[in-house]
Amino acid sequence: MTATAELIAALAPGRVLTDPDVTDSYARDRTFLEPGRPLAVVLAESRDDVVAVMRWASEHRVPVVPRGAGTGLAGGATAVEGCVVLALHKMTAIRELSPADEIAVVEPGVITADLDRAAREFGLMYAPDPSSYEISTIGGNLATNAGGLRCVKYGVTRDSALGLEVVLADGRILNTGRRTVKGVTGYDLTGLFVGSEGTLGVITSATVRLRRAPLTYPATIAAEFGSLREAAAAVAAIIAGGCQPSLLEMLDRATLQAIDEWKNIGLEPSVQAMLIAQSDAVDGQTAAERMSVLCAENGASFVAVSADRQEAEELIGMRRMAYQAKERLGACLVEDVCVPRSALPDMISAIEEIAARHEVRICTVAHAGDGNLHPVFVFEHGLPEPPPEVWAAADEVFRETLRRGGTLTGEHGVGLLKRRWLALETGPVAEEIHHGIKQVFDPLGILNPGKAI
Amino acid sequence: MTATAELIAALAPGRVLTDPDVTDSYARDRTFLEPGRPLAVVLAESRDDVVAVMRWASEHRVPVVPRGAGTGLAGGATAVEGCVVLALHKMTAIRELSPADEIAVVEPGVITADLDRAAREFGLMYAPDPSSYEISTIGGNLATNAGGLRCVKYGVTRDSALGLEVVLADGRILNTGRRTVKGVTGYDLTGLFVGSEGTLGVITSATVRLRRAPLTYPATIAAEFGSLREAAAAVAAIIAGGCQPSLLEMLDRATLQAIDEWKNIGLEPSVQAMLIAQSDAVDGQTAAERMSVLCAENGASFVAVSADRQEAEELIGMRRMAYQAKERLGACLVEDVCVPRSALPDMISAIEEIAARHEVRICTVAHAGDGNLHPVFVFEHGLPEPPPEVWAAADEVFRETLRRGGTLTGEHGVGLLKRRWLALETGPVAEEIHHGIKQVFDPLGILNPGKAI
Repeated sequence: MTATAELIAALAPGRVLTDPDVTDSYARDRTFLEPGRPLAVVLAESRDDVVAVMRWASEHRVPVVPRGAGTGLAGGATAVEGCVVLALHKMTAIRELSPADEIAVVEPGVITADLDRAAREFGLMYAPDPSSYEISTIGGNLATNAGGLRCVKYGVTRDSALGLEVVLADGRILNTGRRTVKGVTGYDLTGLFVGSEGTLGVITSATVRLRRAPLTYPATIAAEFGSLREAAAAVAAIIAGGCQPSLLEMLDRATLQAIDEWKNIGLEPSVQAMLIAQSDAVDGQTAAERMSVLCAENGASFVAVSADRQEAEELIGMRRMAYQAKERLGACLVEDVCVPRSALPDMISAIEEIAARHEVRICTVAHAGDGNLHPVFVFEHGLPEPPPEVWAAADEVFRETLRRGGTLTGEHGVGLLKRRWLALETGPVAEEIHHGIKQVFDPLGILNPGKAI
Repeated sequence: MTATAELIAALAPGRVLTDPDVTDSYARDRTFLEPGRPLAVVLAESRDDVVAVMRWASEHRVPVVPRGAGTGLAGGATAVEGCVVLALHKMTAIRELSPADEIAVVEPGVITADLDRAAREFGLMYAPDPSSYEISTIGGNLATNAGGLRCVKYGVTRDSALGLEVVLADGRILNTGRRTVKGVTGYDLTGLFVGSEGTLGVITSATVRLRRAPLTYPATIAAEFGSLREAAAAVAAIIAGGCQPSLLEMLDRATLQAIDEWKNIGLEPSVQAMLIAQSDAVDGQTAAERMSVLCAENGASFVAVSADRQEAEELIGMRRMAYQAKERLGACLVEDVCVPRSALPDMISAIEEIAARHEVRICTVAHAGDGNLHPVFVFEHGLPEPPPEVWAAADEVFRETLRRGGTLTGEHGVGLLKRRWLALETGPVAEEIHHGIKQVFDPLGILNPGKAI
């Protein structure tokens, strides 16, 4: 029996796909990266399926690439040659939702926004909300430690992860963390798995923290600026002023234009940047008024405080579709640098200067309240990879980020895309420690090899 | 030259203490545990001192026990025979405090409350506030992932740790994390060190997150109950009602009595439990009124909403002195179990029943909003260790906790005290992983051996 036949035999009928036309559709994430060809794709439906795959993979030393919805932007779920893609999107049970303990126990394939909606029926919410939250999964969010729009107030995915059930490389099951909001027994293995991009184990269940949902729809403001720098200064003023926004997003002109070309939003020629901010606090309206004053003081040409929920949702929806709008313009290298908040204006200026000098089209959106910038480098559709000037510009953006005390990736992960810059940020000691830890969990090196570290 | 002489020569004059009368005073934490006798105590004043100690210790394979203020309650800083105690309380610099980025960079010996006070000059606060925060250090708080009174709203120490500088067992320097509020480059080594109780490295600097301080003093309530179970039910109602307290503490009659005997607080005979709650939200007064109604509805015999800051501070001060009050009664085995919040009433009842059956005096205080209970087992002063009935009762408390989905330690750490129960909670797979990780950081096993894992 061949190894593949053994895999097929180990699982229920229909769970192993080997037709290359089919497997290829599970080989990519949202990046342009050219994947290797998978040996097979497993559509896991249970923890036992995952255990069977990992036992088989350990025996045959076959690489395994775990996969959620494939919405990643760093290449973390890109298939490697001859791997098994372990797709978890069919494990969609919300096993438990406890309003009293404000926790949920979920399988990795649950769509992020579905969990949030389920929680809201009890006056709770699942706070982390990456832009992709209507299509991304909790498992993928955990693997990348995804951020989102609300994390300026509520923190990233790790801040909502209390405990995990993980299948290790050899098929053993590890339970990490707990159901309590506090706990210090043992090392923080939960935190270690969150953001490890499938290189340490396969998450088959997560106990996540829910939070009280705000009682009313957040107060929302939109502000337009004649320059990105002014918008960035307004962001700094909003944070320093203690407004505690629950959302604080920035879009540059190139992004607004891409959206305008698609959706016809009536963009004025003078607008170079837009801020969208929300406050979901009890005194949200007061906070919104203060934020609008700070925008005006920092040069906004137009500020509106929205009283209307539909209008606000359209505004946020526009922000969430920013990436799709850019994909219409060309292939995209999406970056994800994050700087200390005070460095935001200078970092914005640096990106503009780098784009101009390399004659590269960069559209930038930012989770501005966190200092987390997404400069999107747009290049010609159909090229096998970004042209040299895009890589050169990206390289400069990374170095500028690190020079300002920032990090290469705020929320997307290192994946494949950022590995060549990784050592610049972490240094040789951390690199050795990373590989030492990897060795503890995955001595054969079969779990998502070549990613993240 | 002897090993000790080499150590003395490697450091500036006066930094190495070897007189047993002096070194013994650095050998204990706040537990009753009998320490081993240290070879020497090093009073480190800089990272270079720490590097010198670790290089020397690696060369001579001498165990090193890092130490902050020695306020730990689990034995984590207890000296082991022939070790060097590496005392970090003289490294007290706040190297940086950036209001714009809402971060501080601090040395490990900074007293926790001092950092909080420094932040408040800029309208910020350092949120984690263990009861010992006027005497404990940031380094010790990081080592144990300390909680505190405010963590029901603001999270534990790990939630405020952004990055660390760590001296590894062999003297190399590892920088973890970042200065930004978000970041996913590499594994979460910061989270791994926080709570690792000095077993993975020695923290010589930390970048911590500051938060906006509330603009007014929190609204405060105190409520008295005729039974602990009623008080616990009120806690559950306050959490489930979305009141979002910034402090929610419970004291049982035994604790109140100990305080009364010491400070004469005029305790009424019928009072079996007291709740103290605060809200530091903008609508704190409203939240406090709601909490007081929920206390009354759950059987409180007396509820007061305090408008007076001094009165409130006396109340909180009383809570913070609960442990000292109990130390007057006898030697204390302080436990630190944490259960899902909905399990609080049943867990309280279980502790009462266990105390009665074993005829053991247990005084309980709780960070009730987190489900984190501190049953303090009081026994005769001067005994070398707790009598068998105390251990038997503690054993039952731990097993009841785990049966209810709880954890052995919410915030004090495993240290030495809880090691014999550790495997009950973590299981053999996690145990193996813990030791694998320990091996990566400390292959010679010289860092705080026999603790935590």
